[in-house]
Amino acid sequence: MNFKEAYSKKIELIDNYITIHLDSKYGEVSPELAEAMKYSVLNGGKRLRSILCIEICQMLGGSVARALPFAAAIEMIHAYSLVHDDLPAMDNSDMRRGMPSCHKKYGEAMGILCGDALLNAAYELISESCEDASTVEALFCIASAAGAQGMIDGQVIDLNVAATNECDLKLLTKLIELKTMALIRASILTGACIANCDEKIMGDMNEFAYHLGLAFQVRDDFEDIDEDSAECGDSPNFVNFLGASKAKEMLETHASSSANILKKYENSEFLSQLHSFLFD
Amino acid sequence: MNFKEAYSKKIELIDNYITIHLDSKYGEVSPELAEAMKYSVLNGGKRLRSILCIEICQMLGGSVARALPFAAAIEMIHAYSLVHDDLPAMDNSDMRRGMPSCHKKYGEAMGILCGDALLNAAYELISESCEDASTVEALFCIASAAGAQGMIDGQVIDLNVAATNECDLKLLTKLIELKTMALIRASILTGACIANCDEKIMGDMNEFAYHLGLAFQVRDDFEDIDEDSAECGDSPNFVNFLGASKAKEMLETHASSSANILKKYENSEFLSQLHSFLFD
Repeated sequence: MNFKEAYSKKIELIDNYITIHLDSKYGEVSPELAEAMKYSVLNGGKRLRSILCIEICQMLGGSVARALPFAAAIEMIHAYSLVHDDLPAMDNSDMRRGMPSCHKKYGEAMGILCGDALLNAAYELISESCEDASTVEALFCIASAAGAQGMIDGQVIDLNVAATNECDLKLLTKLIELKTMALIRASILTGACIANCDEKIMGDMNEFAYHLGLAFQVRDDFEDIDEDSAECGDSPNFVNFLGASKAKEMLETHASSSANILKKYENSEFLSQLHSFLFD
Repeated sequence: MNFKEAYSKKIELIDNYITIHLDSKYGEVSPELAEAMKYSVLNGGKRLRSILCIEICQMLGGSVARALPFAAAIEMIHAYSLVHDDLPAMDNSDMRRGMPSCHKKYGEAMGILCGDALLNAAYELISESCEDASTVEALFCIASAAGAQGMIDGQVIDLNVAATNECDLKLLTKLIELKTMALIRASILTGACIANCDEKIMGDMNEFAYHLGLAFQVRDDFEDIDEDSAECGDSPNFVNFLGASKAKEMLETHASSSANILKKYENSEFLSQLHSFLFD
């Protein structure tokens, strides 16, 4: 099986797991709520976070079956944050991945409630899967990343930057560390927690997450600029802060640092291929 | 110490715990986010849910110190639900407990994010306090009540009822069971979980929660009608569905059933006084 086929299979694994979970758990709730939840989380995402979680867990000798509910919970948290970010009072986005955003399709009240429901559903799923110290550690790791010290403060800073038009490289880095990197890091560390790895390996995974998260963001910034140079010329990102040449250097440095950490580990074949797919 | 002094002391215990926790945990986040979180949760609430949680735990021989973080988490979930319910797309309430509602004071985007942050903060706090099967069971109990099968579906049904003006007694009962009673029940069962009680006692507590929750709602309905008869004559509640006389009978039946369960337990003095304070 080549990489793209393997990657598709993993996306299918995650999406099937989420579908079956939502159908069985929320089959009896108000139909429009259940439908909005599925619409918002099963919308063709790349599943990078959840795949990192299960692959890191597997690379470190842990069980994919044990990591899967945590990986699915992380995707639900990612989906909730997009639903709320799209709301009129926030980024006011009518579209998400080529389809009407949740509030555009189901109304603003349902956008708020569906986001709330997805965030809470993540913790419901985790609560069913907490069974020992390592899974409680994974819960802690996810909850810290998703909260006011992580993603939510990232969104607050983002809105402040958009309102004031004031941003420097230090603030941009903080914004990205909270808004994007915190949940990517939590995905990786959750996989490591569930594999019960020691502190030294946890240190490596932390470093891997840092470099991968930054490389991923700069890559995204280049893609945004390719897609819509007019709009993204205004909003602060690494490419327009550093210039294309320095940003490319930054991307290469962090991509190569994260690749080097993977090379130290056996059974990292799929992750290395994913890394090449993203950055080569 | 008389009952009112004892009750005030318990409110102070909860409020101090929440204040210290929020200050120490979120001291470094964007100041307006930290401020909005404190504003929304420390606003003179009666702390009924958290006090039920710690008092039930204590009555059943459990530790107040172990119950306290869960009780505080329940108050944060209650507060988040009010912040989001008040938003313009939902109930559009400018005031909450005699003060401007969160989004009125901090803007709509912050209303959404502050609610998200409080919901997530509840799980962050719980994740720090999960240490054994009984605390994981408490987490499960809280997460189930707060989610799409509980409070959130209650709010969806409430909005549908308001939009369509269609409601019968069966739907009203379901709405109340989800929107109000689910978290009250979770507060009581969380206290029981943390006290490690057996299935028989858990059955009693479930029944206690059912009767107390219903009695509490009917009492609230009478208070709403006293406060603003014009407005509440329109929105469905037990008093205008059943008429004052039958609703009073319903209140008395459920209040007395819940009081009778308490009587079976030693160390229920404070809870019995609280019960009399609410219903006599």
